[in-house]
Amino acid sequence: MTDHDQAVKRTLEFLRKAGIVLTEEEQQKIEIAEMGLGHLEVEGLQLYTYVNTSRYCAKELVLFPNQTCPEHLHPPVFGEPGKEETFRCRWGTVYLYVDGEATVNPSVNPPKGKEAYYTVRHEIILTPGQQYTIPPNTKHWFQAGDEGAVVSEFSSTSRDEYDIFTDPAIKRSAGLN
Amino acid sequence: MTDHDQAVKRTLEFLRKAGIVLTEEEQQKIEIAEMGLGHLEVEGLQLYTYVNTSRYCAKELVLFPNQTCPEHLHPPVFGEPGKEETFRCRWGTVYLYVDGEATVNPSVNPPKGKEAYYTVRHEIILTPGQQYTIPPNTKHWFQAGDEGAVVSEFSSTSRDEYDIFTDPAIKRSAGLN
Repeated sequence: MTDHDQAVKRTLEFLRKAGIVLTEEEQQKIEIAEMGLGHLEVEGLQLYTYVNTSRYCAKELVLFPNQTCPEHLHPPVFGEPGKEETFRCRWGTVYLYVDGEATVNPSVNPPKGKEAYYTVRHEIILTPGQQYTIPPNTKHWFQAGDEGAVVSEFSSTSRDEYDIFTDPAIKRSAGLN
Repeated sequence: MTDHDQAVKRTLEFLRKAGIVLTEEEQQKIEIAEMGLGHLEVEGLQLYTYVNTSRYCAKELVLFPNQTCPEHLHPPVFGEPGKEETFRCRWGTVYLYVDGEATVNPSVNPPKGKEAYYTVRHEIILTPGQQYTIPPNTKHWFQAGDEGAVVSEFSSTSRDEYDIFTDPAIKRSAGLN
């Protein structure tokens, strides 16, 4: 089994724990965003996009235990404000960091050696049933707890290719194959 | 227990079956849309709105067994096209009817005596993991199968008060209290 197929299989296990059903056809379209960093378990994200129209988007995000989605923001594109998004935790725990007063004694830390690329430190903890809306054009990053996490994302139109990551090494479109 | 509280309790049972968690505070905000028709079990809808911004909206819809959400459309408002919405079935079966060629031998029928207010007859069947996107300004109605149904709705901004129902007796804002 390739690394990609292994990651898809694992993603499906988390979705199952959250009670989320994908059809066989949808399962083939799960995205493994390794982001060109070469250490998916540390930094990366698994996702499935339900719908992305010119007006709105909905995705399911899966984080493996302690996996971090690197800091980024959604800039204005085509004269529209950047993507506005609501994260709703469905399963597990997600530690979300956004702009604002740095949280003293945060629950988790950025990946070791990558601290310079994680600049916002205001902590929001989301457990199942809790949600938070991130305004356009503002930096954020998030990390799963020890169990991993499943997060529903409701948003305006998604244009991932325009995302701006703090770490210049990141290539958002890079996926495992 | 009031009719409203009874309907909320029942709604929560269906959400639980679908593995969907609402916080205690959210549970208090479940909407029982009786629509002024006085027969919730026949025509009506239960829903919870996760988020409704100026750009997007996400809701969870619950239908009791064989309950019908009456035919309506989302017209243009404030110079924007009407609401565009994606229904994704999470649990149970939902029979959705949209504009298009009438389906011969449809799976279900409009509520008895209300046939005149159900004019679109093209059938889409959604089971868990299946979804359908309804364009703005087009009539649609839907009915749950014998088990009931839980449906996630992803959409552009929701402005329910402007919905146009085919049945003139309907008051969208009427809820059970």
